[in-house]
Amino acid sequence: MIMSKVSFRKIKKSDLNDVFALLNQLKKIDTSDLDLDNSWDQFIQNNSSNSIVGIVDSKIIAHGSIIIENKIRGEVAGHIEDIVVDTEVRGKMIGVKLINELIEIGKKNNCYRITLFCKENLINFYSRSGFKVNSVSMKRYL
Amino acid sequence: MIMSKVSFRKIKKSDLNDVFALLNQLKKIDTSDLDLDNSWDQFIQNNSSNSIVGIVDSKIIAHGSIIIENKIRGEVAGHIEDIVVDTEVRGKMIGVKLINELIEIGKKNNCYRITLFCKENLINFYSRSGFKVNSVSMKRYL
Repeated sequence: MIMSKVSFRKIKKSDLNDVFALLNQLKKIDTSDLDLDNSWDQFIQNNSSNSIVGIVDSKIIAHGSIIIENKIRGEVAGHIEDIVVDTEVRGKMIGVKLINELIEIGKKNNCYRITLFCKENLINFYSRSGFKVNSVSMKRYL
Repeated sequence: MIMSKVSFRKIKKSDLNDVFALLNQLKKIDTSDLDLDNSWDQFIQNNSSNSIVGIVDSKIIAHGSIIIENKIRGEVAGHIEDIVVDTEVRGKMIGVKLINELIEIGKKNNCYRITLFCKENLINFYSRSGFKVNSVSMKRYL
């Protein structure tokens, strides 16, 4: 299969179901009861979230998000989350391009640094975009 | 020295210089040229940030922040940052109380989970508040 070039754009409300299907490849969440209008409004209202989608042949095949945080001493920091590339198109450098797009958004927002969490098997992948292991991430479910 | 009980409240603009002095114990940033009005407005406008200060004997001796993120599938997630307890009052469980206050803010905001980054020597400290090591954190400076 010859694949067209990937392009990226800001997420639109009409992308939601496609993006949910992609994110379900990472972690299954039942969104069948979700009020799409309401959750979109919540998501957009929280103006610190910037999601983009990757498109190949008019199909959404990737999603990523960068959260922009205004810190108290005037710094701006970015945090990358919810990175997913469709299992059908992995190994084609789409992930690296996606991360680089998010880094550009961070630069435009004057971030001085970008952080992310990942499992150890992804350290090599993120190293390609200039990330270095920094510390431990800890989590508590409520 | 007998110390009064610590109390916590939401940060106010007039706390800024005291909080900067505390955060400088973690990482020195020259804020002498910072426009306080402007940086406060930026910080408050980004309504995902929730900072609290800890007070003992009318003095600000601790600061912590929890960033609330509306995720695209309707979940709400919290992220703890900029935790500092004055070196003069360490070892009095103020840090644990501070983290627990931030967890309560996360619960009130319906967070399903809270994350944080830390150095390995702080794993025990955060374990006391129910956090478990989850993954690696990576960072890139821009």
